[in-house]
Amino acid sequence: MGISRKKISVIGSGFTGATTALMLAQKELGDIVLVDIPDMEDPTKGKALDMSEAAPVQGFDAKIKGTADYKDTEGSDLVIITAGIARKPGMSRDDLVNTNAKIMKTVTKEIVKYSPETTIVVLTNPVDAMTYSVFKESGLPKGRVIGQSGVLDTARFRTFVAEELNLSVKDITGFVLGGHGDDMVPLIRYSYAGGIPLETLISKERLDEIVARTRTGGGEIVNLLGNGSAYYAPAASLTVMAEAILKDQRRVIPSIAYLEGEYGYSDIYLGVPTILGGNGIEEIIELELTDEEKAQLDKSADSVKNVLTILDK
Amino acid sequence: MGISRKKISVIGSGFTGATTALMLAQKELGDIVLVDIPDMEDPTKGKALDMSEAAPVQGFDAKIKGTADYKDTEGSDLVIITAGIARKPGMSRDDLVNTNAKIMKTVTKEIVKYSPETTIVVLTNPVDAMTYSVFKESGLPKGRVIGQSGVLDTARFRTFVAEELNLSVKDITGFVLGGHGDDMVPLIRYSYAGGIPLETLISKERLDEIVARTRTGGGEIVNLLGNGSAYYAPAASLTVMAEAILKDQRRVIPSIAYLEGEYGYSDIYLGVPTILGGNGIEEIIELELTDEEKAQLDKSADSVKNVLTILDK
Amino acid sequence: MGISRKKISVIGSGFTGATTALMLAQKELGDIVLVDIPDMEDPTKGKALDMSEAAPVQGFDAKIKGTADYKDTEGSDLVIITAGIARKPGMSRDDLVNTNAKIMKTVTKEIVKYSPETTIVVLTNPVDAMTYSVFKESGLPKGRVIGQSGVLDTARFRTFVAEELNLSVKDITGFVLGGHGDDMVPLIRYSYAGGIPLETLISKERLDEIVARTRTGGGEIVNLLGNGSAYYAPAASLTVMAEAILKDQRRVIPSIAYLEGEYGYSDIYLGVPTILGGNGIEEIIELELTDEEKAQLDKSADSVKNVLTILDK
Amino acid sequence: MGISRKKISVIGSGFTGATTALMLAQKELGDIVLVDIPDMEDPTKGKALDMSEAAPVQGFDAKIKGTADYKDTEGSDLVIITAGIARKPGMSRDDLVNTNAKIMKTVTKEIVKYSPETTIVVLTNPVDAMTYSVFKESGLPKGRVIGQSGVLDTARFRTFVAEELNLSVKDITGFVLGGHGDDMVPLIRYSYAGGIPLETLISKERLDEIVARTRTGGGEIVNLLGNGSAYYAPAASLTVMAEAILKDQRRVIPSIAYLEGEYGYSDIYLGVPTILGGNGIEEIIELELTDEEKAQLDKSADSVKNVLTILDK
Repeated sequence: MGISRKKISVIGSGFTGATTALMLAQKELGDIVLVDIPDMEDPTKGKALDMSEAAPVQGFDAKIKGTADYKDTEGSDLVIITAGIARKPGMSRDDLVNTNAKIMKTVTKEIVKYSPETTIVVLTNPVDAMTYSVFKESGLPKGRVIGQSGVLDTARFRTFVAEELNLSVKDITGFVLGGHGDDMVPLIRYSYAGGIPLETLISKERLDEIVARTRTGGGEIVNLLGNGSAYYAPAASLTVMAEAILKDQRRVIPSIAYLEGEYGYSDIYLGVPTILGGNGIEEIIELELTDEEKAQLDKSADSVKNVLTILDK
Repeated sequence: MGISRKKISVIGSGFTGATTALMLAQKELGDIVLVDIPDMEDPTKGKALDMSEAAPVQGFDAKIKGTADYKDTEGSDLVIITAGIARKPGMSRDDLVNTNAKIMKTVTKEIVKYSPETTIVVLTNPVDAMTYSVFKESGLPKGRVIGQSGVLDTARFRTFVAEELNLSVKDITGFVLGGHGDDMVPLIRYSYAGGIPLETLISKERLDEIVARTRTGGGEIVNLLGNGSAYYAPAASLTVMAEAILKDQRRVIPSIAYLEGEYGYSDIYLGVPTILGGNGIEEIIELELTDEEKAQLDKSADSVKNVLTILDK
Repeated sequence: MGISRKKISVIGSGFTGATTALMLAQKELGDIVLVDIPDMEDPTKGKALDMSEAAPVQGFDAKIKGTADYKDTEGSDLVIITAGIARKPGMSRDDLVNTNAKIMKTVTKEIVKYSPETTIVVLTNPVDAMTYSVFKESGLPKGRVIGQSGVLDTARFRTFVAEELNLSVKDITGFVLGGHGDDMVPLIRYSYAGGIPLETLISKERLDEIVARTRTGGGEIVNLLGNGSAYYAPAASLTVMAEAILKDQRRVIPSIAYLEGEYGYSDIYLGVPTILGGNGIEEIIELELTDEEKAQLDKSADSVKNVLTILDK
Repeated sequence: MGISRKKISVIGSGFTGATTALMLAQKELGDIVLVDIPDMEDPTKGKALDMSEAAPVQGFDAKIKGTADYKDTEGSDLVIITAGIARKPGMSRDDLVNTNAKIMKTVTKEIVKYSPETTIVVLTNPVDAMTYSVFKESGLPKGRVIGQSGVLDTARFRTFVAEELNLSVKDITGFVLGGHGDDMVPLIRYSYAGGIPLETLISKERLDEIVARTRTGGGEIVNLLGNGSAYYAPAASLTVMAEAILKDQRRVIPSIAYLEGEYGYSDIYLGVPTILGGNGIEEIIELELTDEEKAQLDKSADSVKNVLTILDK
């Protein structure tokens, strides 16, 4: 009858999952359950314990539990899926898709078993297809299964622009549609510094370079790290989506959403501007696109559908 | 002539160094330079870039630069040393001490070359000896070379107590003297829940167990992770010390400080309660100890001196 | 079915009520309804609107509504009562008590009519008696009707001690029992700087002066302002209690609690250490008192009972 | 030689000045000196003390001093002027201008006497003329004397738009040029919800109504309060400007800046987009205006010049 904390489960205790758990806890968004496979149970517990020991120093109240037992996720208000493998050298895209899709199915079954009315945010790549897969498996309403990509893509774009203009990141915004990374459709005309269109502040050539760098922003980090992929910015991106939902903020955030006719597509998960609040995706915002933008978005949608055909096999 | 941001260099871009950089940036304590050896230059840049890309999403303004060139640390207001190796199976303690002491010397030379009036906080183990080593090499005033151990030890203690009593971590405090981990001297009589002495809330037996668990808290994480050691709580501990110094807060924080007669010891770095502010350690607080506590502290000091003899060789 | 924000009503839109509303909103603890009498409807709306206009700049999401209609408080998770008159020159204490008790009754009736399962925190003076009055009128369980006094009294004490020792306020704690202000029973032996008992850091004479200043801390502000009483620190005090409840933090916080035998008193509201969480006062912590402390507490309880007799008339 | 806190003086301890002091302290931007005339010395001290007593509860470290002696402002990194009278019924605009201009002169003389290299932010109305007056009196470089109006005007606009669209205030931006309130020139085409131009989300008629309400936003609060004017949103606006300067954030913020040819005007203070950082106004951003916008801005500039002629008399 009293007030109790929100509960958030993070599936996958790799760097992204763990960093997401930390950031959720720092913001006191709820108690955290960090879940991984039985083989990873001890490291998962170790990370959760280490984070818990940061709590008194950073001054946040959040229970953080590491586990391999989905029963611990029971009654989660929100579940974030970061589990899955990364593409390794020599691995075909189909193998990646099928392996991760299998993981999505297993994970989703467990999630909805213990939290049949939760909301799920998916990070696992290829994220458009994986979100689709989670949606189909979960039986949840479409607005409650959401993919992350646009927050991260625009975060990278904003970082590069802030550096270019030597301005606060707080005042730079970006705007993307479509798939993640290579497939993203940047809407430069909706990207600003302090509200001023970037096109009036940065030359076309430089902007093109920044967009190109953004497209391959994930790869840039992979190449630098040598062994692994980005996790700080992905975790921050998941956290801001989680916050919008858990605090019912109705924020305008690019999400990978299930489309039923919007932008002319159906039965597909694609990146579009959405309103995120207590019900997950509460609205999809439809913009008028130029012919060129629409053509790019078509290409992006084709690319996503292509991946979905692998799933169907 | 205008106002410019503080500059903080973090030496060592492993998990602890990187997590410390993130936490410093999240608090907008200054611009960050993350430094590692040339072999690690790319991963260091990768982590710094990934973190930078989290900034627009988390809303913090801090430039984070990864580098292998100490020139980039020029004019640092604060330097945090996390560099060093961890003890590996089969490695003797002497080897560990000598290897890390050599690293401290190299690193310190570079630091003071570019920031001759900085303050240095050391995390590298064995931290009492390594802080001593940095102090001697740096030529800095004693209050400007500080070791971390008590914040982390009490953080673990506080976490376990908060769990035991099912209370907010915000209201639990702990108090330690002496060396890190095994060598720590817990002052339970100065440890409280909401100001109430823990001895009146928890049985002697349970408190002893909690102290024992705290002593081996680092090892508990090592065992769970299987491959590596704690970094979230150590990073949080370094960050709170950095904040006290960079914001001139005059906080009462346990530090590894250079003693010149305090508590009856001289020419040794040992964990004692200190006041941390804009001048580093601004004061050492001397407490009256019971005979038992003094005996424990003597043992702890002997243990630290023992390690120092290795350095002398 | 989705997640929605918490709802907090603040009764009384004077400086304390309004500042409390601001601080609750700044922490994004929920949406706020600021209520006052019909005569004050416009100023109440004006303050709420002004605060709402601060939200985009400070970056908090919270709807803040000013109103004279209790219907707007419907379904509040928490209600904070700051309404009431201040004692004016020439007014007898009995008159003050009776006037404010009448206000408590009216206000409480409206609150529980629209939020029959809420939790109420009372600030109105004399706070021990007014909390009792709200409790009796509300029919709510005892743990759900709570008075504020100890947070404010210790806040003042901590401020004076931090100034005395030139230390961060973050590291100073205080501890009080009993009534508010004049009637407070300070437990200096449970008051610390960085965990170190204040008695070892400050002389008995100075501590006595600080305690004396704390006792009359409210009056000190009244005298300085010339026209009105303190509101910043009272609002901060209410906010930290609200946060502990709304985030289910189980913090150790001094509250004015309904006693049923604890400390030897019954059917009285008195300041004692409590655990505040999602159920309001979840526990009362009973401490062993010295004879002198017990005598002081008896005196404090007598004083509260004395005021209660006025209510009975 | 060590690190010390920034120092910020706030001139005028009325509601706006006091609330600004609180918000600066909450963000730990520095130590605060709150200054008013000798007649107001005690209330100023009372407010400062009350705020100081909120510090331990809210967890911020900032010394807050109330004073009537400008010597206490010595060495301020930033000074914020909120002093001045409000226009009273029956008072001519010329009287208002002359009275406040006289106050600006007195105050500025004292400020630069004790902080000859500070930066000053002015709130006092009519703000364009008062900032001009402070600039001339101070002898400071133009970038170091800055007026506030656009942050507040856009804050009101953003609040109304967020309410209209039922969206988070975090995602709504506005853009204004020119004078304050009535004289503001809104650039709707640079105003967005989540980056999407408001013109595509809200009808022209509704937007016009929102703009009209924004123009008279100050008056709306005055009418509701009955006795006084807005202070929460003005204080938040001053605080965000202070933060940009004190943390050297290079934020894009509308400021009242001294123009020397920009936008075709000279020797006038007018609202334009600026980059605020450690040097105050580091750049003025010049936008291409439509003829209609330019005409509106001309009108706004005329209105400001008109007020300046009163000063000359």
